[in-house]
Amino acid sequence: MKPEILLSRIRVVLCRPSHPGNIGAAARAMKTMGLSRLTLVNPKLFPDPEADTRATGAVDLLNAAKIFTSLNEALAGTVFAIGLSARQRDLGPAPGAPRQMVSALLSAAEEGDVALVFGNETVGLSNDELQLCHAAVSIPTNPDFSSLNLGSAVQVLCYEARMAAYAERPPSPESVTTPFVSPTATHDEVEGFYAHLETVMTATGFYNPEQPGRLLPKLRRLFGRARLERDEVNILRGVLAATQNKTGHGSKC
Amino acid sequence: MKPEILLSRIRVVLCRPSHPGNIGAAARAMKTMGLSRLTLVNPKLFPDPEADTRATGAVDLLNAAKIFTSLNEALAGTVFAIGLSARQRDLGPAPGAPRQMVSALLSAAEEGDVALVFGNETVGLSNDELQLCHAAVSIPTNPDFSSLNLGSAVQVLCYEARMAAYAERPPSPESVTTPFVSPTATHDEVEGFYAHLETVMTATGFYNPEQPGRLLPKLRRLFGRARLERDEVNILRGVLAATQNKTGHGSKC
Repeated sequence: MKPEILLSRIRVVLCRPSHPGNIGAAARAMKTMGLSRLTLVNPKLFPDPEADTRATGAVDLLNAAKIFTSLNEALAGTVFAIGLSARQRDLGPAPGAPRQMVSALLSAAEEGDVALVFGNETVGLSNDELQLCHAAVSIPTNPDFSSLNLGSAVQVLCYEARMAAYAERPPSPESVTTPFVSPTATHDEVEGFYAHLETVMTATGFYNPEQPGRLLPKLRRLFGRARLERDEVNILRGVLAATQNKTGHGSKC
Repeated sequence: MKPEILLSRIRVVLCRPSHPGNIGAAARAMKTMGLSRLTLVNPKLFPDPEADTRATGAVDLLNAAKIFTSLNEALAGTVFAIGLSARQRDLGPAPGAPRQMVSALLSAAEEGDVALVFGNETVGLSNDELQLCHAAVSIPTNPDFSSLNLGSAVQVLCYEARMAAYAERPPSPESVTTPFVSPTATHDEVEGFYAHLETVMTATGFYNPEQPGRLLPKLRRLFGRARLERDEVNILRGVLAATQNKTGHGSKC
């Protein structure tokens, strides 16, 4: 696939940005690297003249930005999402290095829309937000001063994306020999499976929503690692539906 | 030589910067990547509150910045200098790619001080200034919008310098704390899970051993890709056991 097309499939999602200047800087950073799809989740101030000023010639990206009230909606239709995380969380995927993770992002972009997800300037992504991503990326920084500006973080990852998109990338072994290939499941399809799984686990008493513990994050980590295909989501939901029917039949008598 | 020492030998030289905010952004970009030696040639406005604001926690680099009236003086004592150039000039070195040029810069840093030289925001480096450099570097950009912000250009090259200094092995967050790492499940543990899954799917009627089709191989492919951990096998078998109990209760009556 052409590098320009791969890059056009990357959504840059900014969650709860506080400073409109950073939104403008992100738009400019994206456009210099050939990315165009700016996505905002609950921006504090937008649109704003400060965003336009910092965007300079990339105001078109600001005008075309999509705005949502939850990360979940912002990721609808994506097949892969990577969240920026400065640190390992108790829950959630272990952060990989930018080069490695961007390479995975571009491989996934061959199949559909993907996302690079950035958190708020001060607090980063919440654990809940990071749970919605398949993978995490951490930009290596000086341990004594790791305060990377949001626009700079967007710049570094978009730069890596451009470098990777235009580099010769050998076809992944997976894509060469795939016996039963099915398209990667979209974010909403995978979320549908998680919701179904939770319902079944709650009905059977294995999961108690009053005392959730780490069960759901652990299951998300497992299936996130596998990057479910559509066909697999259908199979898993079929397994779940069959147990529900069986349970239902049993309790009818 | 230690990565920190190599990085401490890199001077970031800004020639005739117009906007003090960009000087501050450059300082912050440098410090996040472990560089410290900011050098200014004829800044239009410096010091300036806007520089301090954009530097946030990197004001110490602004305070320690060296200021000169010519690039020639700013480069005194360096053994190697690379100038940023968006284009090939009639005169001067042909620009190389960031990764390749930064690698050369770090090799030279083993011998002494080196410099990354950036031009004015609007006009870049003059031909005369570029002539003072040993080599040129060009950051690949979108041909339709190559207007990289000065602070962003500093960020990208300092990031490449850090990556190269740590030779693709920056301390990974993963190695510091691994939250719920459980040992990889053994072959027999995974097989026990598959057998359990098959039993449940058969009991619910989702799977018919008489007409197996591709169901089991597809599930093996999914969970094989994830490389299950022991803890995860226990969770999955817990989910299965709970559905069996529920089904069992129902059919007792």
